[in-house]
Amino acid sequence: MLMGELSNRSGVPIATITYYLREELLFPGVGTAATCAHYGEAHIRRLGLIGALLAIGDFPLAAIRRILAAVDDETVPPHQMLGTVPLAPGPGISGPAEEPDWLAARDEVTALVRRQGWRVLARSPARDLLISALVALRRFQVPPTAPGLDDYAQALAGLAAAEVAGLAAPASAGHEERSAAAEAAVAGMVLYERVIIALRRLAQEDAAARRFGAAGS
Amino acid sequence: MLMGELSNRSGVPIATITYYLREELLFPGVGTAATCAHYGEAHIRRLGLIGALLAIGDFPLAAIRRILAAVDDETVPPHQMLGTVPLAPGPGISGPAEEPDWLAARDEVTALVRRQGWRVLARSPARDLLISALVALRRFQVPPTAPGLDDYAQALAGLAAAEVAGLAAPASAGHEERSAAAEAAVAGMVLYERVIIALRRLAQEDAAARRFGAAGS
Repeated sequence: MLMGELSNRSGVPIATITYYLREELLFPGVGTAATCAHYGEAHIRRLGLIGALLAIGDFPLAAIRRILAAVDDETVPPHQMLGTVPLAPGPGISGPAEEPDWLAARDEVTALVRRQGWRVLARSPARDLLISALVALRRFQVPPTAPGLDDYAQALAGLAAAEVAGLAAPASAGHEERSAAAEAAVAGMVLYERVIIALRRLAQEDAAARRFGAAGS
Repeated sequence: MLMGELSNRSGVPIATITYYLREELLFPGVGTAATCAHYGEAHIRRLGLIGALLAIGDFPLAAIRRILAAVDDETVPPHQMLGTVPLAPGPGISGPAEEPDWLAARDEVTALVRRQGWRVLARSPARDLLISALVALRRFQVPPTAPGLDDYAQALAGLAAAEVAGLAAPASAGHEERSAAAEAAVAGMVLYERVIIALRRLAQEDAAARRFGAAGS
């Protein structure tokens, strides 16, 4: 299809598509000039992913570029992208590694991963995300919640096992199949995080209403 | 304590404290001029909360101002802030209410809340957050995960019940007690969301390693 049809079918204005092309967020079509080139289903899918990531709102363009680079890295099987894609929301609290708070939190995470028997890479970005959250909890002196870290870990591990069981290993290693699977994995990961946060807030509101007797509806 | 000691004990530079005072993120001390006024433990706590919200990184200053206004709204008991504070990360996908995607997602959320028997307000911001995530999933045509929405809801409800059971209803309705409880509730809510996201990514990485045999460590 030509640019006009790509715009119609994806719902993305032509000016935005040419901007994505210029910024290399979208791979070029087949042809010499952007408006005369031919685009395919892969372009529609990619525009959808960019739209979803932008709509979520936490991701600056640089982060979206990094995510798409991981999606397009053919050395990484799509299912291995779960957990390892650099999707960190916000800058987090990194702090120098020699800081006591940070070291203590890192040890806590290492011990948790060992207790749970989790197979996760030492360089997994999710580790740093967890460490930074624990540092912030410590600095703000938030009292530990009744469910401990291991309770959260177990509940989420149960859900994750069911999620991953539903993922098919791509039958062929074709470029097109791999790319589609990787895009779906990333979109699902990012969007379901939003679903989980929203459900948790609703569940907390309900639990508080039950315990303290606030009016609900 | 005077401004200098407040700065030392909180670790926040004086220039930053005066900026927060000017922006009314921090309530003034007792006295006529900022540098000669007296500050108390409540100021240290508030500086910690602002620091935690800033460190999380998703919140622009306007959002932090809104959160602090909710914390300071004495008509809202602290435990009712769970789930109802306007903590939406990012702009989300709001879209006009007459759009079919949005209407369908809204009905899905209403049905879910009814099935779960949750007591949540009709105007709860968490509903819109969930609706916007479902709209994005639909638009990007992410296939439904093996665990359905109700599975996620039940897992999170179990954790929320344990979390809320650990919250004491404030014995006295004193200004100081209410404020401290509200600040702790907000900090815990925001920071534990980060913990949950990080744990979910680690759990997914592990589940994928088990199912597809990637190397972990």
